[in-house]
Amino acid sequence: MKKLINDADDYVDEMLDGMVAAHPDAVRRLPETKVLVRSDAPVEGTVGVVSGGGSGHEPTHAGYLGEGMLDGAAAGEVFTSPTGDELAEMVRACDGGEGVLCVVKNYEGDVMNFDTAAEMAEIQGDVAVEQVVVNDDVAVEDSTYTSGRRGVCGTILVHKCAGAKAAEGADLDEVKRVAEKTIENVATMGTALTSCVTPAKGEPTFDLGEDELELGIGIHGEPGVERTGMLSADEVADRLTAAVLDDLEPSGEVATVVNGMGGTPLSELYIVQRRLSELLDEEGLDVAEAMVGDYMTSLDMRGCSITVLDLDDELRELLGRPAHTPALTV
Amino acid sequence: MKKLINDADDYVDEMLDGMVAAHPDAVRRLPETKVLVRSDAPVEGTVGVVSGGGSGHEPTHAGYLGEGMLDGAAAGEVFTSPTGDELAEMVRACDGGEGVLCVVKNYEGDVMNFDTAAEMAEIQGDVAVEQVVVNDDVAVEDSTYTSGRRGVCGTILVHKCAGAKAAEGADLDEVKRVAEKTIENVATMGTALTSCVTPAKGEPTFDLGEDELELGIGIHGEPGVERTGMLSADEVADRLTAAVLDDLEPSGEVATVVNGMGGTPLSELYIVQRRLSELLDEEGLDVAEAMVGDYMTSLDMRGCSITVLDLDDELRELLGRPAHTPALTV
Repeated sequence: MKKLINDADDYVDEMLDGMVAAHPDAVRRLPETKVLVRSDAPVEGTVGVVSGGGSGHEPTHAGYLGEGMLDGAAAGEVFTSPTGDELAEMVRACDGGEGVLCVVKNYEGDVMNFDTAAEMAEIQGDVAVEQVVVNDDVAVEDSTYTSGRRGVCGTILVHKCAGAKAAEGADLDEVKRVAEKTIENVATMGTALTSCVTPAKGEPTFDLGEDELELGIGIHGEPGVERTGMLSADEVADRLTAAVLDDLEPSGEVATVVNGMGGTPLSELYIVQRRLSELLDEEGLDVAEAMVGDYMTSLDMRGCSITVLDLDDELRELLGRPAHTPALTV
Repeated sequence: MKKLINDADDYVDEMLDGMVAAHPDAVRRLPETKVLVRSDAPVEGTVGVVSGGGSGHEPTHAGYLGEGMLDGAAAGEVFTSPTGDELAEMVRACDGGEGVLCVVKNYEGDVMNFDTAAEMAEIQGDVAVEQVVVNDDVAVEDSTYTSGRRGVCGTILVHKCAGAKAAEGADLDEVKRVAEKTIENVATMGTALTSCVTPAKGEPTFDLGEDELELGIGIHGEPGVERTGMLSADEVADRLTAAVLDDLEPSGEVATVVNGMGGTPLSELYIVQRRLSELLDEEGLDVAEAMVGDYMTSLDMRGCSITVLDLDDELRELLGRPAHTPALTV
């Protein structure tokens, strides 16, 4: 294992400290927790939009803290859910009087702990809490860590649309409605060229031969649904795009994300984007927004995912609204 | 070699097509060239700021095309300078009547071809052309590819400050003065945990043992100046920061970049940032802006560089001005 780390036990703590050190005007850390919030949280008169989950997916979630996206982001240890206590503390810290929407990726630990947190915040803090669960990964119906589909890179677009709705002063029901609409219309599938290596274990989560790749991977180093010989970038784009479009059946206008898994050079993501653009063009789809980069990663894994969001007028407009966060500025 | 590519011969072409496909409103490609320019180039009444060099450093340079940074970006093949012809075509395409500033990283091929391009554009196109050469790498005085120090990640800050000055309508001499001031005040040093692998060769540019790292690497897979056993993130930050501060001797306020080399997870860069912030604090330096991410890469290399820019009022203000580019929005 070759990593730029100190003690593996301090990995998450030091990373969070580094984020605060880099962006002290944008984010702050709740004392004695792994929760980062917008420096100006709670924002009075707006719904708080929060998320969280295991670490290892950076810039997810704390990179999206800021005006127009998230108010709070809770980190667990690598690939481990944050505790209910810390999630509840985040919810209370992000309530500006209008309640809080929790955006949860569909993993059993996350869903359970966010449920606990919502109960605690409602009882102890008198906070109105709603929850949405993102399940955009079309690769598998049930998986190692989930009942139903996994929540992956599409989560970023839920942050963006719900955050934009909250920023305009909409009430909790409306922000939740937008989040659910985004979830209903987003689909993702990913591929890995290599496994990721966790700091604690120091070895690959799964083995993949020099001439193999894995289709349908999740974001925790869990293996995919099909192992094949190496494919070209175009073949990968063809396979991922077909799976996503089959599920979504979009028409008209879409937004897309070609997402790197953490160890993939940007140049390769643009090569995938080139083919994705061709495929969408062949399908007669217009692309309102194409994001290319590392948005939802799996430590140092090499590979990518393709996300498509089927847009209507409302989602397109919300996606285009200003956002100011460390990882995404619109 | 495991890469998301098609034919290695098409690597640069397809990447550039992907950039245009992703950002059609922001950039366009000059026909029959590997030059991308702002979609609205030339911008009448402002100095054109252009750059270029071998590919493999993405998002450098085309990711920085847009209002407030670059007007043109020429790509060569991987780690190979663009031709004089293509550079001259870029210069002509980016002249809005006020002349063009070429920001050149100090590599012999780049400097020579930009010289040729300037002559061609001046003679054939009646364009006023000035050139600045960035040489921010403090690791080596002369190297495989350079007389004098190499130009590396500090180049991004030259793009930003010179681009901001050009956007306000300053004349060519003034834009050049700002670029030179930025160059005078910026220093960088990098480290590699792994070599990069070029698409054409498909194997590492240099060998590095499982328990070794290389200090003082450049951005072309050229080896560094010192090979050591593995160091912790803090030890790496200590070494790189000391070298940069020794060279620069800044006082007061600085901007910093913790730059990933292409294959490094963002989480690790934040762990380095944490230590960098401590060190700068110990030195009594204030940080006006801390950038953390992949800005000037070396294909899939794992590692990072640390850049410090010693600020005065003018540079701080220019750095903070708005910019709208695919890779950086302020």
